[in-house]
Amino acid sequence: MQADLNAKQVPREAAVTHVLSRFVSSAQWRDIPREVRHEAKRALVNYFAVALAGARDPMIDKAMEVYGRFSAGRYATLIGRDERMDMLNAASLNAMSANVFDFDDTHIPTIIHPTAPIAAALFALAECRPMTGEALLLSFVEGVEAACRIGNAVSPEHYQRGWHITSTCGVFGAAAAVARALALDAKQTGWALGHASGQAGGLVETLGTMSKSVSVGNAARNGLISALLAKEGLAGPDAPLEGPRGFLAVACSHADTRRITEGLGREWALLSNTYKPYPCGVVLNPVIDACLDLRRDARWTLDEIESIEIVGHPLLRERTDRPGVRTGRESQVSAQHAVAVALSRGKAALAEFRDDAVSDPVLRALGRRLRFIDDPAWQVEAAQVTLVLRSGERLTHRVLCARGSLGAPLVDVELSGKLRDLAAYGATGVAAQPLLDLLWALDTAPDAAAPMRAARAAP
Amino acid sequence: MQADLNAKQVPREAAVTHVLSRFVSSAQWRDIPREVRHEAKRALVNYFAVALAGARDPMIDKAMEVYGRFSAGRYATLIGRDERMDMLNAASLNAMSANVFDFDDTHIPTIIHPTAPIAAALFALAECRPMTGEALLLSFVEGVEAACRIGNAVSPEHYQRGWHITSTCGVFGAAAAVARALALDAKQTGWALGHASGQAGGLVETLGTMSKSVSVGNAARNGLISALLAKEGLAGPDAPLEGPRGFLAVACSHADTRRITEGLGREWALLSNTYKPYPCGVVLNPVIDACLDLRRDARWTLDEIESIEIVGHPLLRERTDRPGVRTGRESQVSAQHAVAVALSRGKAALAEFRDDAVSDPVLRALGRRLRFIDDPAWQVEAAQVTLVLRSGERLTHRVLCARGSLGAPLVDVELSGKLRDLAAYGATGVAAQPLLDLLWALDTAPDAAAPMRAARAAP
Repeated sequence: MQADLNAKQVPREAAVTHVLSRFVSSAQWRDIPREVRHEAKRALVNYFAVALAGARDPMIDKAMEVYGRFSAGRYATLIGRDERMDMLNAASLNAMSANVFDFDDTHIPTIIHPTAPIAAALFALAECRPMTGEALLLSFVEGVEAACRIGNAVSPEHYQRGWHITSTCGVFGAAAAVARALALDAKQTGWALGHASGQAGGLVETLGTMSKSVSVGNAARNGLISALLAKEGLAGPDAPLEGPRGFLAVACSHADTRRITEGLGREWALLSNTYKPYPCGVVLNPVIDACLDLRRDARWTLDEIESIEIVGHPLLRERTDRPGVRTGRESQVSAQHAVAVALSRGKAALAEFRDDAVSDPVLRALGRRLRFIDDPAWQVEAAQVTLVLRSGERLTHRVLCARGSLGAPLVDVELSGKLRDLAAYGATGVAAQPLLDLLWALDTAPDAAAPMRAARAAP
Repeated sequence: MQADLNAKQVPREAAVTHVLSRFVSSAQWRDIPREVRHEAKRALVNYFAVALAGARDPMIDKAMEVYGRFSAGRYATLIGRDERMDMLNAASLNAMSANVFDFDDTHIPTIIHPTAPIAAALFALAECRPMTGEALLLSFVEGVEAACRIGNAVSPEHYQRGWHITSTCGVFGAAAAVARALALDAKQTGWALGHASGQAGGLVETLGTMSKSVSVGNAARNGLISALLAKEGLAGPDAPLEGPRGFLAVACSHADTRRITEGLGREWALLSNTYKPYPCGVVLNPVIDACLDLRRDARWTLDEIESIEIVGHPLLRERTDRPGVRTGRESQVSAQHAVAVALSRGKAALAEFRDDAVSDPVLRALGRRLRFIDDPAWQVEAAQVTLVLRSGERLTHRVLCARGSLGAPLVDVELSGKLRDLAAYGATGVAAQPLLDLLWALDTAPDAAAPMRAARAAP
């Protein structure tokens, strides 16, 4: 009945879905600028790093138990684990692992974490349908374009309203990427986006719980099956994005539809992608940078600290003034904890934001000495930290462009280091260097699935 | 990052999720009024009828090919087919079959088709986890309450905006139903609703395409896995419905949250559920009723008809004035086709709304003689059809309460007849009578899965 009463009464607008589908389906590696090609590899290095970190998280273990009952075959790798699954379940679980700590990449204009759903879908496919590294990278670039351009069109309202944009737009990205990898034509690619449109979901309310991981996993899985259905000839709607009751109209009051097609082939979403140095809310990055620098300075001891002053944009205080946090999860957005742990341990890695770190009384005492000073003139990438010592001396460090921001991106060796650290953290037994060698050479690899084999834990 | 910046900043409102979860988890069969119990069986008879009709639709065949590659085991029945699948895929595909013709049931206040996702999930579970017919029926009643109450809270805006409410609310219904069937406690039931909240999706734009079926299938599948994850102890958010970025706030500008809890245990959604006599938009029901009655009268022949006048609410014209339709799908919302086929064949079953029926030149010629007369004073359940004969004679039939409306529901024997007709239409070889006997006695059946075995096609 529902179809009956609503279908085909409103004329189609500009065929945005068609333009995007044609772009994705006709893309060639030679069209991808060198810096975009390289950024794709950087994103994948970061992806494997965070997936290795999350691979043995207790939440992933439990999800595995349930998803594992529904796996048809065991041919697709679970990164950092020795079990394997079918490609749909592997896509789900790898996307979950890569995103479970919110330590994955961030497309700055939309705050989408683009890589987890898209890479998880593509590598799962590559393990049962051989493709070159170049083909995978091309498909990945196209998938990121689709996800982030759709995200641009509905931002910022969509996320502010409560949609978990990584999931809602990620399913389009995974569908587009797999469509390209399967060499679907423009029409079929549009159908894949259509099937994705009916599966776009995910709520901000679920963040911090298993429900978030389910929706991030779904983005990978459902994007993958959307493209497989389209390949089988199953048609979707003509205008799943721009139609009167399509994703853009439904997901946002005032979508800027042009953002999907403007500059296609000239502007690349991956060039606005960033990688986190610390497993924290990004507004804390400059604060942690400053604290680590002050710690290196080492002209003081913890007992000498009378108070700690942070100057920054009011958003910094609004989002991170959280004394007395009780869980590792909460500590990832607590300036009190981040400052204390960075000053006392000189590190701000995953281990510093676990439940056991949070309960350390030294850190709690130090955190209580924190004071915020709002200054709207500051950018969110910047902050200043001052240690006020009992002697009256003031030690100040100012960071104008935090590590990991677009202005000061992690360099390649830092990304390699992140993978090494997180492989060790995840304790999966995966050897980091061979995996890194494969990833940095992926564009010339005959078999795109090789990094997945290198990312398996020994049984 | 996203979690970090948004979590836990806004206080929870009334704990609607908790109240609903407690209601679902504590429900007992003895609390369910007799007429609700009976309505549950009626809904299931209608469900098996429409699933048998859709079971061999070409779209379902193709979906099977893709979904079948990802089935872990072959223990759960696909209604009207000889293949089997694992319970997640069986839930998906049975929900798709039952909904593919939009001939399934309709909860009038929300226009949700409640049964397809919920029944598909429950029967799939019942095939691998034995339960009594009473337990399945109780779980079904609770699932329908959850789906329709959440639907009430977001109606009418949610559907009008473009959300396919059968899918978006269906996943909550399936999750709640399976939670009850698994005897989850209130807390775990809330988690199941939380996992469902992150998977709520489906767009009106996709109706009439495979994408719609994907989302209806997902509602069943994802509701089922939501409850399985909750059973495993995987926690969801505290307030997935009423939280500041929960489903109600995100899916609707002005959700009426109270509609979820008001009258729980006193008012039952199933008592507002209806079953279609014809596979058409419901506004056409009184028109078809009138035409079939005029045809029975038989004081005229087709050549004698000069014109046909329909008097009804303007909505009737707005939604069904569709001359020259080309596909069976379109004909389901064409007054021209419906009137012509009912007058000329004296029937309005699925065969009358297939592609081959649409191309009949006799019907096209007859349809061209139709005239609409708007009258806002009419209810949508009512219409008047007048045959103006070449002799000048006018034959008028007025229907005030269409068959299948809440005021004139299909009676049990009509529902049984619908199942017999649709089992024959689907050509699955399933014997209707044994299946009907099992369904009408489901409340006393020791094994709820028995109807599934009776609904299997012979290999």
